[in-house]
Amino acid sequence: MSKKQKTFRPKPRVPKGMLDEAGDAVIGQMDMIETIRGVYESYGFDPLSTGALEYADALGKFLPDQDRPNEGVFSFQDDDEQWLSLRYDLTAPLARYVAEHYDGLAKPFRRYQWGPVWRNEKPGPGRYRQFTQIDADTVGTPTMAADAELIAMMAECMEALGLPRGSYTVRVNNRKVLDGLLDRAGLDLTSADYELKKLTVLRAVDKLDRLGPDGVRLLLGTGRKDDSGAFTPGAELAPDQIDLVMSFVQIQSSTRAAVQDSLAGLVGQTEAGAEGLAELAEIDELLTVMAMDEDRVQFDPSIVRGLGYYTGPVFEVDLNAEIEDEKGQVIRFGSVGSGGRYDDLIERFKGTKVPATGCSFGVSRLYAALQLLGSREAKPRFGPVIVLVLDKDRVPDYQRMVGELRNAGVRAELYLGGSGMRAQVKYADKRNAPVVVIEGEDEKAKGEVTLKDLVLGAKLSAEIEDNKEWRESQPAQLSIAREDLVAGVKDLLARNAD
Amino acid sequence: MSKKQKTFRPKPRVPKGMLDEAGDAVIGQMDMIETIRGVYESYGFDPLSTGALEYADALGKFLPDQDRPNEGVFSFQDDDEQWLSLRYDLTAPLARYVAEHYDGLAKPFRRYQWGPVWRNEKPGPGRYRQFTQIDADTVGTPTMAADAELIAMMAECMEALGLPRGSYTVRVNNRKVLDGLLDRAGLDLTSADYELKKLTVLRAVDKLDRLGPDGVRLLLGTGRKDDSGAFTPGAELAPDQIDLVMSFVQIQSSTRAAVQDSLAGLVGQTEAGAEGLAELAEIDELLTVMAMDEDRVQFDPSIVRGLGYYTGPVFEVDLNAEIEDEKGQVIRFGSVGSGGRYDDLIERFKGTKVPATGCSFGVSRLYAALQLLGSREAKPRFGPVIVLVLDKDRVPDYQRMVGELRNAGVRAELYLGGSGMRAQVKYADKRNAPVVVIEGEDEKAKGEVTLKDLVLGAKLSAEIEDNKEWRESQPAQLSIAREDLVAGVKDLLARNAD
Repeated sequence: MSKKQKTFRPKPRVPKGMLDEAGDAVIGQMDMIETIRGVYESYGFDPLSTGALEYADALGKFLPDQDRPNEGVFSFQDDDEQWLSLRYDLTAPLARYVAEHYDGLAKPFRRYQWGPVWRNEKPGPGRYRQFTQIDADTVGTPTMAADAELIAMMAECMEALGLPRGSYTVRVNNRKVLDGLLDRAGLDLTSADYELKKLTVLRAVDKLDRLGPDGVRLLLGTGRKDDSGAFTPGAELAPDQIDLVMSFVQIQSSTRAAVQDSLAGLVGQTEAGAEGLAELAEIDELLTVMAMDEDRVQFDPSIVRGLGYYTGPVFEVDLNAEIEDEKGQVIRFGSVGSGGRYDDLIERFKGTKVPATGCSFGVSRLYAALQLLGSREAKPRFGPVIVLVLDKDRVPDYQRMVGELRNAGVRAELYLGGSGMRAQVKYADKRNAPVVVIEGEDEKAKGEVTLKDLVLGAKLSAEIEDNKEWRESQPAQLSIAREDLVAGVKDLLARNAD
Repeated sequence: MSKKQKTFRPKPRVPKGMLDEAGDAVIGQMDMIETIRGVYESYGFDPLSTGALEYADALGKFLPDQDRPNEGVFSFQDDDEQWLSLRYDLTAPLARYVAEHYDGLAKPFRRYQWGPVWRNEKPGPGRYRQFTQIDADTVGTPTMAADAELIAMMAECMEALGLPRGSYTVRVNNRKVLDGLLDRAGLDLTSADYELKKLTVLRAVDKLDRLGPDGVRLLLGTGRKDDSGAFTPGAELAPDQIDLVMSFVQIQSSTRAAVQDSLAGLVGQTEAGAEGLAELAEIDELLTVMAMDEDRVQFDPSIVRGLGYYTGPVFEVDLNAEIEDEKGQVIRFGSVGSGGRYDDLIERFKGTKVPATGCSFGVSRLYAALQLLGSREAKPRFGPVIVLVLDKDRVPDYQRMVGELRNAGVRAELYLGGSGMRAQVKYADKRNAPVVVIEGEDEKAKGEVTLKDLVLGAKLSAEIEDNKEWRESQPAQLSIAREDLVAGVKDLLARNAD
């Protein structure tokens, strides 16, 4: 490096929309992934790992915001001129993998995968350009048993994470029923622009929670201008068509049978509607066998999901807890995961139908739900026990203490900075250390060590107003014989474990 | 989507240098990461997670192959014209993070991190453009206790992974000792081109294992032409300078004291050399306190590491097992992890010294080592128990069996394909299922289920030549009462667990 390069000082800054996470948040999300992996494994899914980069043509363009100029994907050209993209979900890479290795795979192919995905979108509050998903998919079968299983598995994941029954609901719908509805509304399902029209309709319906019925009506009709003045074009449906769609999405019942009855009245006479209803009936029966009653899984026609590639059942897991949104309004927490059937995605490569269905949890969103409900994965934990350095020449002695503690299974570290006693205790506080170990000149002479219980110390200093009295009593600090170090520390840790 | 788009068929292919991994390989590497995380945690390190993308100027250019035109990094321009890069290691993002949050951090800052990194390099056998690292670093302290701790921790990770003492060696050196050597060789350590010259020397030395002494001599001198005819320019040292460097790197002894003595004779009189030796002595003392004897950690002047940013101690963990290379030659397996001190990396941002040291394991390379040595993380595992579907109208009944098994903690799945009995058993074989459950018409009538032990079945069919005899005996298949399903499956699983 030349002198000139050395004097260039880049500004340290996290890139726009990227997120740094430290400590408990990383541990909590990792534990969460392990719990979900455990459930996925118990259902017989096996893991797959693919790279972050895919050829752009293999990924396809199925994002909700596909009308944006850059299509929501980070892309760049490789040395050999081919376009590479960072994956925007884990489903498109799965489709590529299955198409590439089709003949050699055990079919149906059941895999789970977790990892980061990237979206080249405008970041906002709680909305990042990288986030982690954990998916499970069954590829190569049209049976509704595959969909029912995923729906049940998502419910089971919630409970495995400590979210009690009643705190969440898996809501299920079927895109074919929506096709039936649009057929009844007089749209031509075989016309060239039907898919695009349908996508506009379902993206309007998808916003029911956020915009309410009036907002959705505008998006189904002539379009809607938001608070910022930005205009979203509508689906250009006629008023009676809009009424029909609204009566559909507002079907609500806590029993799956009642929803099926209402739907039958509305779309049962159409070919697509009848097919969708038969699929829902099959799912209903299997869910009942799996003890997935209405306190866990409901049918809800307003669930449509924004992704373009779904072809049959769609579902999402909602947390029922209420929170305040940015504007201070109380809203339902909403979706932490979703899924659905995508029978055409692999056909893109192969030219033959490979029916498939899958589900996905958004890890950071689910973690926010766990934090909200105080689940165990979101509990803060203690830092390590810290052995202070009072005499720099005696670092090997202190290191020996650390070794004794670690060998006894106690998470422990040597203070490695250069500061004095007071700053060292401050460091220990900042690390959330439960205990510090002190061996100064006096202790050394007496063959003792002093243990400081920082947990009790913090509690006492919060309770006792009279600082003098506290300092004299010092009940959070005790001296023990050097050879009792491990036992003494373990006693204090046990005391604080509750 | 228009009809035209629908008929475009992209070729499904994994991008150049990306790797798909499935099943046991994913599980094994995940288990490995969990084990290493456990050791890092026990040493008091806390996790950090940063995004895959960094601003290019923040990453800097410290790769071994920094002379390549694209500098080995995947980069592209963001909407706002800023250059983003995929991180090439986890150290540069750490430096950015620490510089960005310096005032608020507990110091020394101790973090571990794992995740994928990307290199825009030509892929080769076992060499990918994405791979996973798991790092631990201590930032903000110059003490050798921090380096000694990382060295000990790497040794402890190897043993936690089931690699016995003697199967690996942590080799330690110090860049300052190399400075001392080049000072004695007559180079001007304060000249503008010294750093570049030193980098050329140490990259030559770094190839000792692969090229042997003669190859290194060429790279230290006028340069070397490889088998393909490609020429690598040399460091342009004079013959007596080359002799000096070679005598340095070929110092070998199984005792750390003897290596220190040899080094003292060679570079002890130089300022940098004396400083490096004092650091090695301090590390030696601390390693001894931590019971890290020469069967685990040795000093080795040939260890220099290729990265430009190291300033003090450098170390690597070698697996001592021998393997055949691509040319069929027997070589030592070599490095699975490495680390070192980088006191200047954060100064790039801050302008003030923030001394730091870190270590890193390469996950896939370490996993290959575990596979070679037959460690537990690399053992294949069984697939799920599979309930076959003999009568499609009775899927709910079969699903109920799967539920009973899962509730009893047995990994189980329903066969979700559309094929007949024979193909279903083939599927189960391919999934490495230990047991399949069969309830056909006959079984149903008798209130029974048939269990097929595929593990024993495979063993028997390998042993017994006479296929007829085998088919008649069928000892790997038994019928039990339907209500004994769970107990019966558990019995078979227990039999096969050994």
